[in-house]
Amino acid sequence: MRNGITNCTVLRGLTEQHYQKSPSKFFFCVGDWCDWGWTMRKATWGLLLLLTCAATCDQSGQNQDGEQKGPSRRGHVSVVVVGSTGDLAKKYLWQGFFNLYASQVGKGYSFSFYGGGLSPDGRGTPLLFEILKSQDCPVDVSDERCALVREQFLRLAQYRQLKTEEDYQALGQHIETQLKQEGMVEAGRLFYLSVPAFAYADIAQRVNRSCRPPGTAWLRVVLEKPFGHDSNSAQELATQLASSLKEDEMFRIDHYLGKQVVSQILPFRKGNRKLLKSIWNKHHIDRMEIVLKETLDAKGRISFYDQYGVIRDVIQNHLTEVMTLLTMSVPKNLTDCKEINRNKLKVFSALHQLDMPSAVLGQYQTYNSEVQLELNKTKDHFSLSPTYAGIAVHTTMPQFDGVPIFLVSGKLLDERVGYARITFKNNVFCAQDQTSITCRPKQIVFYIGQGQLQYPAILVSKNLFKPALVNNGWKEVIENDDTLLFGIPLSDYYIQTPVVQQEAYTELISQVFRGRRDHFVSAESLLASWKFWTPLLNSLKHTFPRPYPGGAANGNLLDFQLQGREVRFCSEALVNMIPQEKTESFQVMQGKYRSADMVSAWSKELVERLAHDLQEAAEESVQEGTPFHLALSGGSSPLALFKQLTQHHYAFPWWNTHVWMADERCVPPNEAESNFRTIHDHLLQHVHLPYFNIHPMPVQLNQRLCVEEDGGALVYEQDIARLVNSSSFSYVLLGVGFDGHTASLFPGNRLGSSGERLVALTESPLKPHQRMSLTFGAINRARRVSVLIMGKGKHELVTQLSRIKDTPDRWPITKIQPVNGRLVWYIDYDALLGQ
Amino acid sequence: MRNGITNCTVLRGLTEQHYQKSPSKFFFCVGDWCDWGWTMRKATWGLLLLLTCAATCDQSGQNQDGEQKGPSRRGHVSVVVVGSTGDLAKKYLWQGFFNLYASQVGKGYSFSFYGGGLSPDGRGTPLLFEILKSQDCPVDVSDERCALVREQFLRLAQYRQLKTEEDYQALGQHIETQLKQEGMVEAGRLFYLSVPAFAYADIAQRVNRSCRPPGTAWLRVVLEKPFGHDSNSAQELATQLASSLKEDEMFRIDHYLGKQVVSQILPFRKGNRKLLKSIWNKHHIDRMEIVLKETLDAKGRISFYDQYGVIRDVIQNHLTEVMTLLTMSVPKNLTDCKEINRNKLKVFSALHQLDMPSAVLGQYQTYNSEVQLELNKTKDHFSLSPTYAGIAVHTTMPQFDGVPIFLVSGKLLDERVGYARITFKNNVFCAQDQTSITCRPKQIVFYIGQGQLQYPAILVSKNLFKPALVNNGWKEVIENDDTLLFGIPLSDYYIQTPVVQQEAYTELISQVFRGRRDHFVSAESLLASWKFWTPLLNSLKHTFPRPYPGGAANGNLLDFQLQGREVRFCSEALVNMIPQEKTESFQVMQGKYRSADMVSAWSKELVERLAHDLQEAAEESVQEGTPFHLALSGGSSPLALFKQLTQHHYAFPWWNTHVWMADERCVPPNEAESNFRTIHDHLLQHVHLPYFNIHPMPVQLNQRLCVEEDGGALVYEQDIARLVNSSSFSYVLLGVGFDGHTASLFPGNRLGSSGERLVALTESPLKPHQRMSLTFGAINRARRVSVLIMGKGKHELVTQLSRIKDTPDRWPITKIQPVNGRLVWYIDYDALLGQ
Repeated sequence: MRNGITNCTVLRGLTEQHYQKSPSKFFFCVGDWCDWGWTMRKATWGLLLLLTCAATCDQSGQNQDGEQKGPSRRGHVSVVVVGSTGDLAKKYLWQGFFNLYASQVGKGYSFSFYGGGLSPDGRGTPLLFEILKSQDCPVDVSDERCALVREQFLRLAQYRQLKTEEDYQALGQHIETQLKQEGMVEAGRLFYLSVPAFAYADIAQRVNRSCRPPGTAWLRVVLEKPFGHDSNSAQELATQLASSLKEDEMFRIDHYLGKQVVSQILPFRKGNRKLLKSIWNKHHIDRMEIVLKETLDAKGRISFYDQYGVIRDVIQNHLTEVMTLLTMSVPKNLTDCKEINRNKLKVFSALHQLDMPSAVLGQYQTYNSEVQLELNKTKDHFSLSPTYAGIAVHTTMPQFDGVPIFLVSGKLLDERVGYARITFKNNVFCAQDQTSITCRPKQIVFYIGQGQLQYPAILVSKNLFKPALVNNGWKEVIENDDTLLFGIPLSDYYIQTPVVQQEAYTELISQVFRGRRDHFVSAESLLASWKFWTPLLNSLKHTFPRPYPGGAANGNLLDFQLQGREVRFCSEALVNMIPQEKTESFQVMQGKYRSADMVSAWSKELVERLAHDLQEAAEESVQEGTPFHLALSGGSSPLALFKQLTQHHYAFPWWNTHVWMADERCVPPNEAESNFRTIHDHLLQHVHLPYFNIHPMPVQLNQRLCVEEDGGALVYEQDIARLVNSSSFSYVLLGVGFDGHTASLFPGNRLGSSGERLVALTESPLKPHQRMSLTFGAINRARRVSVLIMGKGKHELVTQLSRIKDTPDRWPITKIQPVNGRLVWYIDYDALLGQ
Repeated sequence: MRNGITNCTVLRGLTEQHYQKSPSKFFFCVGDWCDWGWTMRKATWGLLLLLTCAATCDQSGQNQDGEQKGPSRRGHVSVVVVGSTGDLAKKYLWQGFFNLYASQVGKGYSFSFYGGGLSPDGRGTPLLFEILKSQDCPVDVSDERCALVREQFLRLAQYRQLKTEEDYQALGQHIETQLKQEGMVEAGRLFYLSVPAFAYADIAQRVNRSCRPPGTAWLRVVLEKPFGHDSNSAQELATQLASSLKEDEMFRIDHYLGKQVVSQILPFRKGNRKLLKSIWNKHHIDRMEIVLKETLDAKGRISFYDQYGVIRDVIQNHLTEVMTLLTMSVPKNLTDCKEINRNKLKVFSALHQLDMPSAVLGQYQTYNSEVQLELNKTKDHFSLSPTYAGIAVHTTMPQFDGVPIFLVSGKLLDERVGYARITFKNNVFCAQDQTSITCRPKQIVFYIGQGQLQYPAILVSKNLFKPALVNNGWKEVIENDDTLLFGIPLSDYYIQTPVVQQEAYTELISQVFRGRRDHFVSAESLLASWKFWTPLLNSLKHTFPRPYPGGAANGNLLDFQLQGREVRFCSEALVNMIPQEKTESFQVMQGKYRSADMVSAWSKELVERLAHDLQEAAEESVQEGTPFHLALSGGSSPLALFKQLTQHHYAFPWWNTHVWMADERCVPPNEAESNFRTIHDHLLQHVHLPYFNIHPMPVQLNQRLCVEEDGGALVYEQDIARLVNSSSFSYVLLGVGFDGHTASLFPGNRLGSSGERLVALTESPLKPHQRMSLTFGAINRARRVSVLIMGKGKHELVTQLSRIKDTPDRWPITKIQPVNGRLVWYIDYDALLGQ
């Protein structure tokens, strides 16, 4: 190596001289492959020496050992950066390509670099070269060698205006002509679109039409967020792009995936799988936090930022990607992007849907005036874009069921830092010394960068286990420091960090070049992510974010707490910790309706009240020592109730509850149309009922549906008679259809004929026509019957029902009159008042 | 009041004089009740004055106000303390009765007190009076008044030898004679048995025969632990006592229930129910700790202690009672002992059974030499009685499912303290300031006494809620102290404490007197507690406790950690955290058996290995994107496997698993004999399978069992064909019966005739005879078949099977030969080697 440096220094003068003569573009080959022929024609003797020298610097050991196993000839790569003089390109991309070039010198590829832009060549060229000249040397390359490599890099680069269809045609022709002239085999073409997303589709189309390489050479087009702003726009963009490019030609960058720590999450999990296996689950993990805090504001970027807000800007993409890496099944093969993709999609499909109460939002106080200024808005303009969000995500994956995953990001906070932190439950009982390391908190931290630590690292608390190094490029760090990091002295962690810190873009550009798709975002997972986030974004559209002053002054203003699967800011804590209390204080109206009791409220409060009353009834049965027999209707109205029950009524005595069906459609019970399926998916799936307490209606017998002779209704009736005392249900929950039907008792059904029967086959005017239903007789024997009516659409019905007499043939609901039980109508204000 | 004191002082001389004259016994009435007549006859004028004075001290306000509503005449109470000069009586009981007497003066009852003992009267009398004279004054009674009351107390007391049947007869006669002579109405008789438990039955019998009061007067007999040493002995004692006493005549004391803090657990829960309702569940509670630490050793008590050990001594009773108070449903009526009892029994019935790994045991190092000394044992005697135990209890109650309850007690520890501590999960995300109170730990502590705080108290961390005072006798304490109590500065707690500290026995004696049974242990709950603890005690019989030096020197030696529902000492932590690793290293033998693969190990490791292999197979299905179809057999052998799966295989992909039955008995599916019931109770109940993935065999159709014409076998076959690809199960788990049957395929069944059928009705030689079973055809189509054989009892069978050829008619198991699948035998060393 020392020899190499000497030689190179000697040769520098010659190189500079050569650059003066031929400043535009240069094809380049290196090392002991000068039998490739073409180089000889163009290269001067001096340059050949130079190149050999560069190669020697790289591979001196090998040369000295006399090993001459040169790489096979791998072909030529054309790199086109569209938007080559923009901020991102200036700051990261060219550095990434320069690093790529420096690392590939001598490995068998040749390159040309095209910086594309909207400016004419005359204006673009000096701009581009100004950028290219100022790229830093990679840390593993000596200054001398770097200077040489940089010279070459500059020679291989040129600026081209890429504005019109014709510009792209010209570029395509130029590349082909060059290749032909030089007699080069083409390896592939790499387009990096560093342009606003709205331009993607057009550019992709032009690349497809005019710049697609012939034969087997590859085409790779790199794109970066935003990939749309919601599910539909993302889908639209995906469709547009798909008409020009194949999925495996697109490399969607999430630069977080190129962060050294993020890219090692899966290798860490795999490398320590034996140690993690028993603790990487809900029984040990207390929570996960994925956090990206910034100290900067959005000034200067408002025109972009205000359309997106913090969730679209960093949470939907960066933090979500980290979440998938933490919760997905570790693929058997870490480079198998198909397996990775499959496992990621499973994560998305298992996430609980988010809605308004899943997030808290903040906006720093000066944001709005920045918006008014940068977007030329008047003083009465108010932006609702959040600059801070705290979100609790939950998954139904059994191993993480109940483990909250906090995704948090914000601008103008107290610290710039990114991390993913897994805290473990305290499973130790300390009989005496509470301060020993055994009893201290246990956690694993993927410290992405900045912050207190100032270097990327993976930290594992010492009372957990000693992790293996993720790879050879990482080293262990010993910190004899008592500073607390996340509540634990630094010296209590095993810490590992990359030997060489590397920019995410350098890493990702190298991976695009190598065709490694595992650190990129697939169309499927992108759409899955948007599908997950869009409902939340929609629900938050009109939410006012909490204003915060910024920096240390935020104090505890942005702290939030989990309540069930919902979150809320802590400063309302003492009130909000106890939602049940509301059941006794919320705005509920009690009255009479059709001579029975009526409860009315806004829908949310109404459902809370109904759930509360239901639990109270269930608890009474427990007190009496009898099972609680609950008959439920299908349809959509009970869904809100089910949600309330599963998320807020943890003490509901399900173990003592039997769930029966008020009615069923004659479809197989696991089909989407089945009432049982609905009840299963929205209620039974989420609570813990003994198997024997679940009573779907036997609509399918002998492989056929609701055939009278199969006696399904009778079977159900016998089940009821056998299990339910006097066949009197504890609670029947009903709805009403627009036509006045309830359960599956429709107008005009021959209701009288059912006599003493408890269960009957009935006919619906709507498909599926065949139904099975509890009879009036069965319902009216119940101890409690509730009818739930919600929504403006039902207002007319509610009004009409309030006026008419009992006319069961026309309005079946009017025949619901419990003999010894109590009927209560639950009608929300929308339905009652039509507002 | 001031008047009263003056009067009393004046009268003291007279009282003392009177006592000299009549030292044996004195009937006593007080206040404005001197119309009762009988007092007049015996009492001197001076005494009458005294009594009036005492009453004036008590009720001066009333008298001054001229309110003369005297209590109605309530009758006479005879108190008999058997064992009246023993340690407990000396230290607590007489104090309790003295306090009772002092509190009852002027409330309408008259008393006589009998101190019983084995000594003759001449020896016992001075002993007793020595004790009685030295009782402390109740804090709410002035010294002057106390002196007077003590005088009276002494007069009302007498010693009696209570040794033989005749002694009790004499006592009975004496009481009756006295009552007759004085013309008194009898209220009741209170016997306090402060004697070793072995004497209970005899004394109860004698009390029943000779001392039972006539008519409506009550009999109350107070007993104290030990109530047996296991389930059987407790049952035996209960039966013996029940032959003499009615349940409502027995007051089983657990003096912990008289501790002021313990007695306020239910009132606290009830008084703060609105605030607790939403957090008193598994979603908020992280764990419960119930701890009783002592600094003393067992010296001097070894003859008792060594028979019992720490679990029987304090955990089965005191700590268990506290546990029930924390986890039971709060009764609507806190004084309704029936409701309390019912709710407590529900707690016991919901507890997960304990076994060896549920506990860690310790023994202080000098204990054994103390045993040798006190029990006259030789140097090679080694006692296994634990003096320290840490136990993790879990309940299946849905609201606490998964919340560990640690019960910990030990002698020679660093501190004397008793507490129950409920720690809550950290549900707050602190965006910036981690040190604010919002983000500190949240807990509720029932501080029973001693320790750092030195007073009994209920503490609630301020970031949780501000609790109501439990009753008027309690006050709030403000501690401006930064000392940490359980990791939180004292100033961060709301603290409440009793205004007057009261001994547990005083409280309980007062309750016996008032006939309040709610703070006593019912026979049912006592037996339920023993039923719960006995299996653990039996399983630990031969366990060597870990030796510990005692005091601060114990360091972290006794810390333990939770793993699933099991515990182990932490000093083995780094190894034990990862039980799964063992699956790759444990002592397992692989070999061949009947030409197929065989795995053999000790039963524990064998089951671990089988569970591991099963999960691996299930995970493969997930990887392949296909459901895992698992067919399970009934019987007892898979129970250990189910336990392993539910407690250690949290990541088992149950959501992707279908559970089928290999065979079923023709009994209703929810009966105890049903295979499905077994699988349900031991497996399905504890894991989260979609309802649609559970496939019991349809043995009951049309309200009858396994009738050929009902086509149950065909229905199951069709289900299999519809859901299982090629009807090829992923995994079939089988056992083998002594007769060589597997599934429900028995020797001599006409097996050939089943042909292509997958499911068939079969006949068992044992009851219930009718069975439904997968056929050989169905089993042999499976991808994997495992046969599990365990226990010495199967050794002969295993040997025989290893020798014989395929003879399916005689040995059905030999026909298990998967066509395209793999057969593995899992045989434990007991069965394989007969050892």
